Amino acid sequence: MKRYEKFADDIAELIRSGVLGPGQRVPSVRYASQTYGVSPSTVFQAYYLLERRGLIRARPRSGYFVNTHAPSPFSEPVISSQVHESTEVDVSELVFSVLDSIKDPTTVPFGSAFPSPTLFPLQRLARSLASASREMDPRMVVTDLSPGNPQLRRQIALRYMVGGLMLPMEELLITNGALEALNLCLQAVTEPGDLVAIEAPAFYACLQVLERLKLKAVEIPVHPRDGIDLGVLAQNLEKHPIKAVWCMTSFQNPMGATMPEAKKQALVELLREHQVPLIEDDVYAELYYGQQAPKPAKAFDTEGLVMHCGSFAKSLAPGYRIGWVSAGRYAQKIERLKLMTSLCASMPAQAAIADYLQHGGYDRHLRRLRYALEEQQSAMLAAIARYFPAQTRVSQPAGGYFLWLELPEQMDSLKLFQMALAQGISIAPGPIFSPARRFRNCIRLNYGSPWDETSEKAMETLGRIVRSF
Amino acid sequence: MKRYEKFADDIAELIRSGVLGPGQRVPSVRYASQTYGVSPSTVFQAYYLLERRGLIRARPRSGYFVNTHAPSPFSEPVISSQVHESTEVDVSELVFSVLDSIKDPTTVPFGSAFPSPTLFPLQRLARSLASASREMDPRMVVTDLSPGNPQLRRQIALRYMVGGLMLPMEELLITNGALEALNLCLQAVTEPGDLVAIEAPAFYACLQVLERLKLKAVEIPVHPRDGIDLGVLAQNLEKHPIKAVWCMTSFQNPMGATMPEAKKQALVELLREHQVPLIEDDVYAELYYGQQAPKPAKAFDTEGLVMHCGSFAKSLAPGYRIGWVSAGRYAQKIERLKLMTSLCASMPAQAAIADYLQHGGYDRHLRRLRYALEEQQSAMLAAIARYFPAQTRVSQPAGGYFLWLELPEQMDSLKLFQMALAQGISIAPGPIFSPARRFRNCIRLNYGSPWDETSEKAMETLGRIVRSF
Repeated sequence: MKRYEKFADDIAELIRSGVLGPGQRVPSVRYASQTYGVSPSTVFQAYYLLERRGLIRARPRSGYFVNTHAPSPFSEPVISSQVHESTEVDVSELVFSVLDSIKDPTTVPFGSAFPSPTLFPLQRLARSLASASREMDPRMVVTDLSPGNPQLRRQIALRYMVGGLMLPMEELLITNGALEALNLCLQAVTEPGDLVAIEAPAFYACLQVLERLKLKAVEIPVHPRDGIDLGVLAQNLEKHPIKAVWCMTSFQNPMGATMPEAKKQALVELLREHQVPLIEDDVYAELYYGQQAPKPAKAFDTEGLVMHCGSFAKSLAPGYRIGWVSAGRYAQKIERLKLMTSLCASMPAQAAIADYLQHGGYDRHLRRLRYALEEQQSAMLAAIARYFPAQTRVSQPAGGYFLWLELPEQMDSLKLFQMALAQGISIAPGPIFSPARRFRNCIRLNYGSPWDETSEKAMETLGRIVRSF
Repeated sequence: MKRYEKFADDIAELIRSGVLGPGQRVPSVRYASQTYGVSPSTVFQAYYLLERRGLIRARPRSGYFVNTHAPSPFSEPVISSQVHESTEVDVSELVFSVLDSIKDPTTVPFGSAFPSPTLFPLQRLARSLASASREMDPRMVVTDLSPGNPQLRRQIALRYMVGGLMLPMEELLITNGALEALNLCLQAVTEPGDLVAIEAPAFYACLQVLERLKLKAVEIPVHPRDGIDLGVLAQNLEKHPIKAVWCMTSFQNPMGATMPEAKKQALVELLREHQVPLIEDDVYAELYYGQQAPKPAKAFDTEGLVMHCGSFAKSLAPGYRIGWVSAGRYAQKIERLKLMTSLCASMPAQAAIADYLQHGGYDRHLRRLRYALEEQQSAMLAAIARYFPAQTRVSQPAGGYFLWLELPEQMDSLKLFQMALAQGISIAPGPIFSPARRFRNCIRLNYGSPWDETSEKAMETLGRIVRSF
């Protein structure tokens, strides 16, 4: 444990024990530095970490304050252990059970992969859909074939441009959600039997794609705060003929980790040396809680080796199935694969989102959405503090809508999944995030729904079941 | 040549030479039988053939009459020759050139795979889209996950039921157009390197799917009138470990052939004996010109071996990308592949089509569409008669919107493609319909656009280029 982490834990303990109450001012950097005998930069780093963990908040020119909805200061999950062998991927029935479990609208959807649709401007989108389809030129049937609706592609490129990233229009392809984009990327650069480096834990859909394409997974551990272990990745790139690296660089699902910019740059550089493409799954990019969107790895790509995938499914229009990929040197190959696989994405959905991006107030919606998600995170963290065993370790991501819980070692999350489902609560058990079925004592919880009594009660029930083990 | 075919050709010659003029009554069966010394059933078969070829038309209780828009009575293309070896599939740049050629809206789209969007009720659909999306329950994001929108699936099952075919709801999966359905079907029953029996000529997208999945094609010749040669198929099933048969049983693209019901039944029976699945691509099913929809092969499936694929792209809503598959015993496997590939089809598009099917007057639209396509076929056939060499052989399908032309042997359709494109006319050259690049003297022409002066002039130009060879 680094010095600043130790110091952060000390402050967290003060908050947990109530010495520092909600809304109270945290010791100033100068005072803390003098009192505790650490350098001011250590204090800064510690406060930054506590801020990321949602415990304190900076107020301009007044210092740091304990959050009013301060979550219980759990420890982070430990870094996932290293795996040396590549693994054939075989997604069990389990993933489908989890998907099935959330189809019943009366189930508490902590196991869901989506935020609650009630957080989205569905009525406003319906207006865009109506007006866009009224104005739709019949010729769009040919003009909007892949790579996709020109207005939509322009709007997407524009958003990146505002964020400082120039994505060439001709490399931007609209897909049936990010999932199709990721399928196409992987298919463009692999043959059956090839090795692909993925995160451990990884989003289960990634495992399903590998299984479908008959690829083997090389698992790279993910640090709960700053993402995959570049050292381990570098070793594996030396040792194995890895054909592609797939990772979520921001708000990783399920861990919540975000690679700092310098680390993203180092990742791109490492892969450039080995001439291995990066498939960057960046579907949570817009759901950051901080002041600024994290830069994607694509921003550091000078050779077209990064295939950057995004989607509106998690930030605006679930169910419309509109995603995209900016695929650098692989763009033409991927466009052709798309034409062979499903021709193009649904045109009314494309036109509607293009219209909404122009007239609908996307940024206003995103600000509300981010705020809601952050509040809901606090509520769920507080509930964990109330109902779960003290040894529980919890991630505290700075965006997205997932918490990753590491429960006491004797815990069996598969049994927990069954027992919770019997009580009408769905969760995502750890083993579905690993081809080797690891993370047996871990679960992923979704806080993407407005917090209410049902959520609170469900957490209480979950906590009771966990304690019963 | 069979006796009735010979007799039909004689009558066709009378029409061509003007002995029998438009609107004139064709000799009665009894008279013809006596005069020409053939049996009445031979005359019946011949007249049925001439009717299918659009030359004559039956009027209830009055006999047969020469069509007023009688096309020139060309001979049918010869049955495509048999191929013995399986072929690795490698789709050349050519298919993409053809796809590119139709993107420019000023190009005459004889090479297109779609009918003109002006033939579709896009405004009425836009209303369905608006009202369906206004009423969309936010929970559809989970309830409408694959297998898809329940109302839409019910409407589709209902249409089949009216046609006498009971498709179990639980086997019906909504996809991103039929192309995705066909991809999923093929993936569900094959491994890379496997053999798949396909038609020769085959729709080029079929070849692209085989290429994408690294499958090998066994080509089965297609008769221009009644579809694939079951004898050749049976031999190949004996000789080779064929894993699936893909065919278009009605209005085959590009040949226009429709297997008679008895032949469809025989095909299903043959495959049942070998326990080989049939992938039935039935996307033109609704575009029949006769009194009744042809029954699909699925109607004879007793063991769930037929994966039946349909789509709204060609009959109602191009660009919406909504298709379906009823996959019998493979239904669950395909639903899971769909979840892994693209999760589900675009929900507003599904809801809009469900609404339209209930309230939009689909059958009225289809009647108009069929009539328009049949008229356009006559116009194009007449233009071929005016401008093309007399040796030209032409298919005369009883549905769909494609003609298959067999040009004089010295013709090179790839050169023709280039030369025509230079004049702003796109065509689909024969070799894109064959993994072995055969059919070099053949072209497919699309008559799916309302006939106008531009079409007429384009045909004149095409004819001039053809004659110049």
